Amino acid sequence: MEIKVGKQAIRDASDALKNWGRWGADDQIGTLNHVIAADIVAAASLIRTGKVFALGIPLDRGGPQTGLFGGRWNPIHTMLATGTDAVAGRQDIVPNIRYADDAINMPVQCATHWDSLGHIFYEEKMYNGFDARLVDCNGLGKLGIEHARHKMVGRGVLLDIARFKGVAHLDDGYGISNDELDRCAKAQKVEIRRGDFVIVRTGQMERCLAEKKWGGFAGGDAPGVKFENCYWCQEREIAAICSDTWGVEVRPNETTEANQPWHWVVIPAMGLTMGEMFYLKDLAEDCAADRVYEFFFCGPPLVITGGTGSPINPQAIK
Amino acid sequence: MEIKVGKQAIRDASDALKNWGRWGADDQIGTLNHVIAADIVAAASLIRTGKVFALGIPLDRGGPQTGLFGGRWNPIHTMLATGTDAVAGRQDIVPNIRYADDAINMPVQCATHWDSLGHIFYEEKMYNGFDARLVDCNGLGKLGIEHARHKMVGRGVLLDIARFKGVAHLDDGYGISNDELDRCAKAQKVEIRRGDFVIVRTGQMERCLAEKKWGGFAGGDAPGVKFENCYWCQEREIAAICSDTWGVEVRPNETTEANQPWHWVVIPAMGLTMGEMFYLKDLAEDCAADRVYEFFFCGPPLVITGGTGSPINPQAIK
Amino acid sequence: MEIKVGKQAIRDASDALKNWGRWGADDQIGTLNHVIAADIVAAASLIRTGKVFALGIPLDRGGPQTGLFGGRWNPIHTMLATGTDAVAGRQDIVPNIRYADDAINMPVQCATHWDSLGHIFYEEKMYNGFDARLVDCNGLGKLGIEHARHKMVGRGVLLDIARFKGVAHLDDGYGISNDELDRCAKAQKVEIRRGDFVIVRTGQMERCLAEKKWGGFAGGDAPGVKFENCYWCQEREIAAICSDTWGVEVRPNETTEANQPWHWVVIPAMGLTMGEMFYLKDLAEDCAADRVYEFFFCGPPLVITGGTGSPINPQAIK
Amino acid sequence: MEIKVGKQAIRDASDALKNWGRWGADDQIGTLNHVIAADIVAAASLIRTGKVFALGIPLDRGGPQTGLFGGRWNPIHTMLATGTDAVAGRQDIVPNIRYADDAINMPVQCATHWDSLGHIFYEEKMYNGFDARLVDCNGLGKLGIEHARHKMVGRGVLLDIARFKGVAHLDDGYGISNDELDRCAKAQKVEIRRGDFVIVRTGQMERCLAEKKWGGFAGGDAPGVKFENCYWCQEREIAAICSDTWGVEVRPNETTEANQPWHWVVIPAMGLTMGEMFYLKDLAEDCAADRVYEFFFCGPPLVITGGTGSPINPQAIK
Repeated sequence: MEIKVGKQAIRDASDALKNWGRWGADDQIGTLNHVIAADIVAAASLIRTGKVFALGIPLDRGGPQTGLFGGRWNPIHTMLATGTDAVAGRQDIVPNIRYADDAINMPVQCATHWDSLGHIFYEEKMYNGFDARLVDCNGLGKLGIEHARHKMVGRGVLLDIARFKGVAHLDDGYGISNDELDRCAKAQKVEIRRGDFVIVRTGQMERCLAEKKWGGFAGGDAPGVKFENCYWCQEREIAAICSDTWGVEVRPNETTEANQPWHWVVIPAMGLTMGEMFYLKDLAEDCAADRVYEFFFCGPPLVITGGTGSPINPQAIK
Repeated sequence: MEIKVGKQAIRDASDALKNWGRWGADDQIGTLNHVIAADIVAAASLIRTGKVFALGIPLDRGGPQTGLFGGRWNPIHTMLATGTDAVAGRQDIVPNIRYADDAINMPVQCATHWDSLGHIFYEEKMYNGFDARLVDCNGLGKLGIEHARHKMVGRGVLLDIARFKGVAHLDDGYGISNDELDRCAKAQKVEIRRGDFVIVRTGQMERCLAEKKWGGFAGGDAPGVKFENCYWCQEREIAAICSDTWGVEVRPNETTEANQPWHWVVIPAMGLTMGEMFYLKDLAEDCAADRVYEFFFCGPPLVITGGTGSPINPQAIK
Repeated sequence: MEIKVGKQAIRDASDALKNWGRWGADDQIGTLNHVIAADIVAAASLIRTGKVFALGIPLDRGGPQTGLFGGRWNPIHTMLATGTDAVAGRQDIVPNIRYADDAINMPVQCATHWDSLGHIFYEEKMYNGFDARLVDCNGLGKLGIEHARHKMVGRGVLLDIARFKGVAHLDDGYGISNDELDRCAKAQKVEIRRGDFVIVRTGQMERCLAEKKWGGFAGGDAPGVKFENCYWCQEREIAAICSDTWGVEVRPNETTEANQPWHWVVIPAMGLTMGEMFYLKDLAEDCAADRVYEFFFCGPPLVITGGTGSPINPQAIK
Repeated sequence: MEIKVGKQAIRDASDALKNWGRWGADDQIGTLNHVIAADIVAAASLIRTGKVFALGIPLDRGGPQTGLFGGRWNPIHTMLATGTDAVAGRQDIVPNIRYADDAINMPVQCATHWDSLGHIFYEEKMYNGFDARLVDCNGLGKLGIEHARHKMVGRGVLLDIARFKGVAHLDDGYGISNDELDRCAKAQKVEIRRGDFVIVRTGQMERCLAEKKWGGFAGGDAPGVKFENCYWCQEREIAAICSDTWGVEVRPNETTEANQPWHWVVIPAMGLTMGEMFYLKDLAEDCAADRVYEFFFCGPPLVITGGTGSPINPQAIK
C-alpha cells in the first residue's frame, strides 16, 4: 500500500476500519471477539511436545525504562520480610512463622504487557465510541484490562521477520510492510487466521539484551510495522498483535503530525489488542529448529480493575 | 492419619518428606519437577469445549487485605495519564498522543498468587538446603518465583469439597482430611495424578464475596487442609496445591506451637508450590454441570526477580 | 452571622472574599502574603524558654486513614536495607558499609499536612483565577506547595476551644462560630493579628488517640469551624488556619448541597493556607500551664513539585 | 592531623569518640543532646531581618538519584485526583467537591534529608550499643528519626568553604581538613559552638544544577570532609553536620578498606546527626552579602516511625 501517513491518513483509516458496534454497543474486548471456542480447541492440538516458552522479561530495577516516555519507571521490588530477619529471630514471637514477603510497584506497561483498549484515544473517544473522560484518576470506567481476563487464549503464530531477512535484528527505523509479513508467513509455511495472536519478532530486544543496554529501547526508536499494518490486521481478523519492541510500530514514525500514528487507529477505531516487549529469543530459536511457527498461546492479564493494561508473562506452548 | 500437630510433628514430617537434592543440588522448583512434557501434551487433550475460566480476583482497593497479616495492603492503582487530561488538551503537544497510563503497587501475595519456594523457612534453611540468609532486602537470592516462569502448565483438577459435602461453603476452622480429599475425588470420578495442579474449593471466598465483606479472610481463620495433608501431597506427587482461601491450610491451626504448621513443612522440606486466593465459583459451577473436574491449567507467574511469589490470573481451560 | 449555607452562600462568599489579583496576577501563595519579614522578627521574640513542640503525628501503618475519603492510604514504610542484612554479612562486599535504608509511600494529605492552594477548585477555577485544568496527571501546573517552601514561618497562636469550653474534646458535628473563636482568644488573653498561623484545637484527635481508634476520623464527622469562618479569616488577615481534625470545618457539613462548603471558598477564592491533623496535646497543655498561647511557628513543607500539599511536622517554639 | 585512614583508624576513632552511655543507656538522639533550651532562645536572637531560606531541593522525577547507590529512586509523585477530572465533571456526584489529590513515593534519603542514628552500623552495633538486628523489615526498633521530631532546632552556622577558597565549587575528591574548617570560620568571623548545626558548602550541588546533570552526584564522587573530621565534630560538640553533597565526606574515600569510613565512626560511635543534599546557593549568597554566617535553624524531620531518616526542607532564618 502507498499511504502518505499523517492526520488525514489516520482519519481515513479510522473511518475505514472502525469496529464500533460490531460486537454490540457494550463490547469491551474488540478484536478478541475474533477468537471463538472452537479456535481454542483447535489450538490445543498444537501442543505436541510439551515445551513451554515464557515470553515475559524480568521485572526488576534492571528493566527497560530509561525515562523516555510517560514518566514510567522500572519495577521497584521491596521486601516486607526477609530470611535475614528470620534467622535473626525477629519473627519468632510474632508472627511465629519464618518467612519472606515482598511488594512490587510498577507502571503496568513498563515491561512485557498487554495494552487494554482504553489505553489510546482518538480525539475525545475510545474504542466503541466510549467517552475518553470515562478514564479519570479512578481508572478506566470502560475498556479496562479486566474485561480480557479470560480472553488471551488461542492460536499463536510467530512471524520471525529478522530471521526471515537473515539478520540478527532489524535496525531501528526499519518499517515492516504488510507484504513482508505475508512473505514471511509464506516462507515459514504458516497461515495467518482469524483469531490468531500474531507475534512479530524484530530482534531489537535481543540486541539490547546482548549489549546489556536498554538506552533508547522503551520510548525510543525501533523497527516495527508500518502504518499500513492497520489494514492488514483488520483484513486478517487477528485477535492481537505482539512484538519484542516497546510499541509494535516503526519509529521514528512515518509522520511528525502524530506520535505513534498506527496506535491512533488500531486501538480506538479497531479495538485491536496489542502486546509489547515480548521476549522471543527462545521461542524463535525453537521455531527455527523445528520449523513450526504456530503454537498454543495463553497470556492471561492480571485482573487490574480499570487498568490500561497488565504486566504479563505469556506462554507459548508447543 | 492421627497426628498430634506441633513442633515435633513438624520436625518428623520435615524429615520424612524432605525433597532436598531429589532433583539436584541446584533445583529451585521443587514439586514442579513432577510435571513432565508428556503431561502437558496429555493435558492439552482436556481442552474440549474451548471454555476458559479466569481464576484471579480483581486487583484494586477493594481487595481482601484488612490488615491482619504482615503489613500487606490492597493493590494501589494510580493513574499516570487520563482521558480527562487528554480531552482537556493536556497531551496534545507533548507527548502528542492521547492516552491513559497507570501503575500498580501491591504486595505480591495480597490477592490471587503463587508462593515461591523461598517464601517459608524452617529454622535457618529454605527448600533444598539453601541458607535463609540468601533472602535479604535485595530479594530472594535463591528460589525466587522467576524460576517457575514456564512451569505453571499442566493438568488441573478441582476438588470441590464444599459441593461434595453439600454446603455452600465450609466453615472457618473446618479441617479437610486426606481421606476426605480422596473420597471427594472418587465422588467426582477424577483421579489425582503425578504432576497435577490440585485446586481445593472450600467456598470461603464465595461467602465473603456474597457478604461483600473480606473481614477475617486474608490472615484470619479459614477452612482448609489438615496438617496431615503434607503426606498426601508427597505421596500423590502433585505439582502444586491451590485453594480459594488465603493460606490453603485450616485455621485456627491444629496447634499453637507454630503459625501455619503445614507451611513449615510443605515449602521448605518438600518444595511444594502453593496457590492461594483462587476464584473458583465459575469453574466449580461448570464442573458440577458437566461433571468434568479436570482441565488444562496455565497459571504463569510474573517474572519477578527474587520474588516470594507473584500475583496471577490462572486459567482453567476445558 | 446567620448564613443559610448552600451553593448560594458559597457563591456569595466567593464573590465577597475573593483575593484574586490582590497580590498580583502571578501570585501563588495567597494569604501567606500576609506575613511580612517584620512579623517573623517579632515572632522570634516569642522564643523565651526554648521549648519545642512537634505537631506532626507518626507516619506509619497505624495512621488515621480508614478508607473514607479519596482512596487515601496510610504511610507505607518499607526497608531497602536492614541491620539483619548487615549482621548476616550481606553488605560486606557490596556496598561494603553496614547500613539501613528505607522508603515511604504516602498520599501527601494522609496525616499532618498542609493543603496547597491548588487542592480545591470552584467550578473550573483555582485561586487567583488559574484554570483548574492546569492540574493534570503531571501535577499542579500552578499553585503547587513548592511555592510556599520558605513561607510557613511566623507567629503561631493556639485557640484551644475544647479547653475554653471545659471539655476534653468537642463532639463531632459541633460547629465553632466566629464569636466563639473571638471569645476564646479573649479568655486566653491572646490577640489574633495579621499574618498569624492560627491553630484551632478541638480535642478530636486526642479522643481518637486515647480510644486507639481512628475509625471515622479522616474523612468522617468532626467538630470544626462553621462556614461563616471564611469571613473571619479574611477579616483577620491571618496567614493560615490549622486544626487537629482532618478538615478544619465542621462535619456533617451545614449543607448537603456541597461537600466541605467552607473549603469551596477559602482555598479557591481566598487563597487561604490550611493545616490539618496537627497534634496539639503537648502544646495545649503547655499553653494552659503558662497561659501563653502565642509562639514562634515554623512548619516547612517538603518541596514537592506540583504537590497538592505536603506531609509536615510543624514546630511550635516557645 | 595525620591519619592513615583504614579499618584500624576507624577502630581507633570509634574507641576514642564513642558517646555510648554519655546521655544515658536509653538515649536515642546522640549529639542533638548538645543543644539545650538556652541555645534555642539565644539562636532566636539571630532572627534580625525576617529572611527565610529553604534548604530543600525539589522532590520530583528530576531528582538527584541516578542509580549509583542502594537502589534508591527519585521521588515518584502521582495524582489521585486532578483538575481535569474536576472540570470533566467526574467529581460532582461523589465526592461532590472539586479537588486535586496526590501521593509521593520516595526513599527517605533520596534528596535533602537527615540521617537517623540507626542508618549506619559498626560491626553488629548501632549508636549507644543497640544491636543492629533491631533494625529489620519492620523498621528501626531503636534510633528511628521519630526521636528527633522536636530536636532539629538551634543555631545554624554556614561554613562556605568554596567561597572561602575563592572557587565556585570544590572539585570531586577534594578533602576538607579540620584546619580548613577552622580557618574558614575565622575568615567568616563566626565561632563554632556547642550545639550548633554546622552546614558545609562545597558548591558541588550548584555545579550539578548549573550543568543540569546529576550524573555522578548521589552515590558518586564528591568534595567533602576528611576522615579526621570526626575528631573535630566531637571536640566542638556540635549538634549536627550538614552539606550540599550526598554524603558529607570526601569521595573517593581516603581508603579502600571501607566505604564511607567517616560514616562508620560518626553515626554508630558518636551518634552524630547528619544532613545531606542541602540546597545552599541562596543562603550562601546572602551570607556573603551581609557577612553574617549564623542564623536560626529549624529543620524538622517528618515523624517517620522507625525511619532511617527523613526528607526535609530545613529553614535558615536570619
